[in-house]
Amino acid sequence: MDFLNTYLIYLIPVFGLIGIAFMAVKAAWVTKQDAGDGDMATLAGYIADGAMAFLRAEWKVLSYFVVVAGILLAWSGTTVATSSPVIAVSFVIGAFLSAFAGYLGMRIATKANVRTTQAARTSLAQALKVSFTGGTVMGLGVAGLAIIGLGSLFIVFYTIYVKNVVGATVNGEAMAKALDVLAGFSLGAESIALFARVGGGIYTKAADVGADLVGKVEAGIPEDDVRNPATIADNVGDNVGDVAGMGADLFGSYVATMLATMVLGREIVSHDAFGGIAPILLPMVIAGLGLIFSIVGAALVRIKSETDSVQKALNIGNWASIIFTAIATYFVVQWMLPTGEFHMVRDEVNGVVKESVIPFTKNGVFMAIVVGLVVGTLMSIITEYYTAMGKRPVLSIIRQSSTGHATNIIGGLSVGMESTVLPILVLASGIYGSYHFAGLYGVAIAAAGMMATTAMQLAIDAFGPIADNAGGIAEMSRLPEEVRHRTDNLDAVGNTTAATGKGFAIASAALTSLALFAAFVGVAGIEHIDIYKADVLAGLFVGGMIPFIFSALCISAVGRAAMAMVEEVRRQFREIPGIMEYKAKPEYEKCVAISTKASIREMVAPGLIALITPIVIGFAFGPEVLGGLLAGVTVSGVLMGIFQSNAGGAWDNAKKSFEKGCLINGEMYYKKSEPHKASVTGDTVGDPFKDTSGPSMNILIKLMSIVSLVIAPHLNAKLAAAPTAMKHEVKKQVIVQAYTSPITKVEKKG
Amino acid sequence: MDFLNTYLIYLIPVFGLIGIAFMAVKAAWVTKQDAGDGDMATLAGYIADGAMAFLRAEWKVLSYFVVVAGILLAWSGTTVATSSPVIAVSFVIGAFLSAFAGYLGMRIATKANVRTTQAARTSLAQALKVSFTGGTVMGLGVAGLAIIGLGSLFIVFYTIYVKNVVGATVNGEAMAKALDVLAGFSLGAESIALFARVGGGIYTKAADVGADLVGKVEAGIPEDDVRNPATIADNVGDNVGDVAGMGADLFGSYVATMLATMVLGREIVSHDAFGGIAPILLPMVIAGLGLIFSIVGAALVRIKSETDSVQKALNIGNWASIIFTAIATYFVVQWMLPTGEFHMVRDEVNGVVKESVIPFTKNGVFMAIVVGLVVGTLMSIITEYYTAMGKRPVLSIIRQSSTGHATNIIGGLSVGMESTVLPILVLASGIYGSYHFAGLYGVAIAAAGMMATTAMQLAIDAFGPIADNAGGIAEMSRLPEEVRHRTDNLDAVGNTTAATGKGFAIASAALTSLALFAAFVGVAGIEHIDIYKADVLAGLFVGGMIPFIFSALCISAVGRAAMAMVEEVRRQFREIPGIMEYKAKPEYEKCVAISTKASIREMVAPGLIALITPIVIGFAFGPEVLGGLLAGVTVSGVLMGIFQSNAGGAWDNAKKSFEKGCLINGEMYYKKSEPHKASVTGDTVGDPFKDTSGPSMNILIKLMSIVSLVIAPHLNAKLAAAPTAMKHEVKKQVIVQAYTSPITKVEKKG
Repeated sequence: MDFLNTYLIYLIPVFGLIGIAFMAVKAAWVTKQDAGDGDMATLAGYIADGAMAFLRAEWKVLSYFVVVAGILLAWSGTTVATSSPVIAVSFVIGAFLSAFAGYLGMRIATKANVRTTQAARTSLAQALKVSFTGGTVMGLGVAGLAIIGLGSLFIVFYTIYVKNVVGATVNGEAMAKALDVLAGFSLGAESIALFARVGGGIYTKAADVGADLVGKVEAGIPEDDVRNPATIADNVGDNVGDVAGMGADLFGSYVATMLATMVLGREIVSHDAFGGIAPILLPMVIAGLGLIFSIVGAALVRIKSETDSVQKALNIGNWASIIFTAIATYFVVQWMLPTGEFHMVRDEVNGVVKESVIPFTKNGVFMAIVVGLVVGTLMSIITEYYTAMGKRPVLSIIRQSSTGHATNIIGGLSVGMESTVLPILVLASGIYGSYHFAGLYGVAIAAAGMMATTAMQLAIDAFGPIADNAGGIAEMSRLPEEVRHRTDNLDAVGNTTAATGKGFAIASAALTSLALFAAFVGVAGIEHIDIYKADVLAGLFVGGMIPFIFSALCISAVGRAAMAMVEEVRRQFREIPGIMEYKAKPEYEKCVAISTKASIREMVAPGLIALITPIVIGFAFGPEVLGGLLAGVTVSGVLMGIFQSNAGGAWDNAKKSFEKGCLINGEMYYKKSEPHKASVTGDTVGDPFKDTSGPSMNILIKLMSIVSLVIAPHLNAKLAAAPTAMKHEVKKQVIVQAYTSPITKVEKKG
Repeated sequence: MDFLNTYLIYLIPVFGLIGIAFMAVKAAWVTKQDAGDGDMATLAGYIADGAMAFLRAEWKVLSYFVVVAGILLAWSGTTVATSSPVIAVSFVIGAFLSAFAGYLGMRIATKANVRTTQAARTSLAQALKVSFTGGTVMGLGVAGLAIIGLGSLFIVFYTIYVKNVVGATVNGEAMAKALDVLAGFSLGAESIALFARVGGGIYTKAADVGADLVGKVEAGIPEDDVRNPATIADNVGDNVGDVAGMGADLFGSYVATMLATMVLGREIVSHDAFGGIAPILLPMVIAGLGLIFSIVGAALVRIKSETDSVQKALNIGNWASIIFTAIATYFVVQWMLPTGEFHMVRDEVNGVVKESVIPFTKNGVFMAIVVGLVVGTLMSIITEYYTAMGKRPVLSIIRQSSTGHATNIIGGLSVGMESTVLPILVLASGIYGSYHFAGLYGVAIAAAGMMATTAMQLAIDAFGPIADNAGGIAEMSRLPEEVRHRTDNLDAVGNTTAATGKGFAIASAALTSLALFAAFVGVAGIEHIDIYKADVLAGLFVGGMIPFIFSALCISAVGRAAMAMVEEVRRQFREIPGIMEYKAKPEYEKCVAISTKASIREMVAPGLIALITPIVIGFAFGPEVLGGLLAGVTVSGVLMGIFQSNAGGAWDNAKKSFEKGCLINGEMYYKKSEPHKASVTGDTVGDPFKDTSGPSMNILIKLMSIVSLVIAPHLNAKLAAAPTAMKHEVKKQVIVQAYTSPITKVEKKG
């Protein structure tokens, strides 16, 4: 056990390596599956090429960004004692690994899609196996790279700045510096994630909306018809948006959650067997356990016959990984953390330890993790309720489709707004509960608990678009009905998992942001974020507005790109004779190019807003106003994220319901009926809501918090050097406190 | 001058009486105008009867509410020293005057509408005169009643609790009690306003959407066609929603702004010639001046020929009243406030006066008022830009209408979201600026300055629906083309003033809420609202969610009521033969009854949410968490209000643009074209946005703040009696402050 205590820190990257090893095995298995015959291979080739073309274009732009941001970071790292130019190195590594994780996911997804189609020619069980294994590769890759990256860098910085430095303490400035430099890794990962999510989101919806508006509505050909010039772009979009975008998003959340917990863990005075850093190591160990149990859970996902429930198989795997991780976490917490009450260094004045506001124990830490797991689960369930077929919300939209396009839209907007209530109550209770159990560290570790099984979550999420693509390839290759039937079965489950995945993603982003927010406050050296101050309140307002302008930019970008797509498709139908009779091949690559160009161009403005706003506000108005801004962004971003994702999901399933037939006021309505047409309008409006702006909210709130955390030492230094105004302010607070408080005796020690 | 100093307090209600006197003269003038011939009189009679039927139904429900709430208030007033059961009296008076102001406005509007139609048979100038005089009656009535009510009650309570009590001080608890009792007046007014706004908003849009969906879209008859069974309900809706609802809204804002400034004014130690209450009297005096100069401004609104600009005439009157009021305010501030720096009592500890965080002078107070005027003006201009025909936002929606219903909706949503940016920046700067000039009192007095010319604003706002109704009566009576042409001219201007009025209303609501928020913090006896505390942050999240559920309830209520209306209209077309040939009269009263019943039923839930949430949160979690809740509601409510109002306004004008013809990609599109149909969808979605949920946000945020202010003394008493937890908390804060602050020396006096 002593040996383990000493070397635990070095074991963390090993968890990641195990994940990567399993990933390699599974990737090899997918690759060696049958990729089908000529037509299928050709189409799959187009999709893979289009996806790579997007990635290359994106990387080109992002490489400029990484270089410029890296230089700025290196320079700024020289200006304060608690940072270092080395932060630029972790930033670049974080950016690279995030991009690499997206690349791995996309590569396997563009292989698994056609192999799933081919497998669907034999059985549902085989099709599930191929598509879900594809998803597992993505999940293990993301989680593995994250743990290897974060774990290794922590070993390096801990060794350099703390362990090998005489007089450096694990709760002091030396560790603060190590963690600040490590924050660069998270910043790099999250920056790339933002561009990937926004760019991918614009790409996929521009192609989807464009393909639908001309193909389905005007030309009357089915979705994924090989005659539609935008169909390849549409299928590429599923990969770059739902696979690479989602992967980068969760990679970012996963890293940010661990980091935030570690930063808060530094403030805990822990007399443990790990040199006092058990609270810092804990989130990484939990993530490592989650990765291992995700592998176990994934192995349980299987069906035997055509009639077995795919959803049930996924649920079994998911629940197994969550429950095993929870149990293992209990023992790890008991083992790693010391008994007795914890207190935070910021409650310690001149060597005299005061009571913590909320003293907590290791059992409290475990309970906070349980809170995180419960919050994640409830958020998924609520999201499913609001977006699932046959439930009240979707049924209400169906009913309102009978009086036209406008009432369908009103219905969806109203469902989306209503759907914020329960998630917010769950989240607020989660914040309250996890704080109650283990203070701010509790909020962070709750998020870490929730994110522990990211590999499994991502496997389930990525399985959906792979199945969707497989269906598209089946349709385009005009394979037999039964093949399409099997892929449709998988796709339907994929739609549900996409919805629950979004609920999970927004919940994790919210808790992560709050953890980062708490970490920011500590590092920035402020003690309150008092919205009773006019400037902080003004910051709150401006922060609340940012998700609105961010959403507006995303949505209008999709609108513009979709219109360009519509015009191109109309042109091809007009100018290339014989497309409709399968005699001429449409120019797929032109549509791919439109989506690529538009998404790369349009992702820049929202990305820069997220990156630059906190820097400007922080340096111009100080850390407390920046704190107000962050709170505003987080609250408004979570609300807008839930609203848009759920409205979009509900509209989508209202439309899908008409494919099976809907009973409204005693009459059955099917495809091509007037109510169905109204529901298509809602679905089209919902597309950018649920796949572009809605999920981008997650990254927006996380990225702005990380940027703030990274600049926090600078703001702290500025605050310490500030002239009388600030000090005057502080003085006033103390006196006023004494005035109103029932206790007027003020203790001074030292 | 000495005489004036002594009796100024008694002069305040006189300002109100002057307003009411002018109102009576103008109302008499409107009444004696020609009401037209048989058909017109009959139709106008239907509208007036329908409006009264709604008011009676609404009053019936509200009277129960007033009795129950009054009893609760009276009881709760007995439980703390700084309140009194008398608060129930001011509550009932406030509720009664608010309802009475709505009644007066609606009575005159339902007279002025048909008289405007008749006047439009002779000239545009005369039609403007009648409709605008109708609006002026409303404006003067609302402002006059508000000043009389608030001014008189203040005289009474000031005399009872402060002036005639030995040892009572104007900055102390005696005055706090007087103002708390006075807050009941504002609570009564704002409660009625909420129900009037929500109920009226649901009424008008259920009728409008229902009438349009069957009449315009299915039966192909024009708007306001006498054959449409819902047309009378639609015209009634203009009166109950836009006239009575808007009147109650601004009555509430007007009163709440003055009250909040007075509550903050109590904390100012002022060595003035008015017994130290100059800062308390100031907002009422400014409002009185604004009322007088509104009368002057209204007299300047006139045109001479058919080609004169109606908008210009309104602008001249508006600007005149604002500029005169600003100039007069300068002299009043110089006269009333003493020279030297002000400080607040909460900065005074045990008799030792500390420096204020921001000391301010009377010039600062005047500058804060100027900030308020500038904010109000800028908000109006920005709102106009985002909703006006021919400007970029509306043009972008027009262009996106060419690719269908869905892209039209996407365009409008994106415009609405984008339109939050500038207003929020203006508002944040306004908060920052007014606070900079005169502290929290500055924020409140800025709102008061902005609201000073409420009478004029309301005259301009109410003129719009009167002109709209006049046009409806002209259409229904099938009067000559030129009559409709003149009323259309007025109506078009009315649409612009409606948009700018909404910008003004949301800005005033935001500043009013912040002023109430500041007042609440003072009265509740807390010194911070620290969102770094997990429970306060949870409150912020829950608060942010409330505008979403409130909007969802409003929108879905309109959706449901509109569907009931659609079915009734379809039934009448089906079952009453001869309607379409003008041979049979539709059963207008059935449609009126549907709207009335639906709106009364559906207004209850949102109203109760606004009233009960702050009470539950405040008593369960304490004043600081309630403060977090209020901040969340205000930020999210302002954003949702701007988003919904502007999206709705822009959709409306995009649709209207097609009536004149729109050039898209080199082709002209008119009414009945496909892009026009798409724009009708947007307009229908926008209807509940801009006339139900959007404007309700104003009252939601104000009402929740007032409820909090009213319960603040109770929370304060509870806090003082709280056990160790709270005291412990306070102790920790002081020590931690000393730890991080550059000044560790803590002063103690006394």
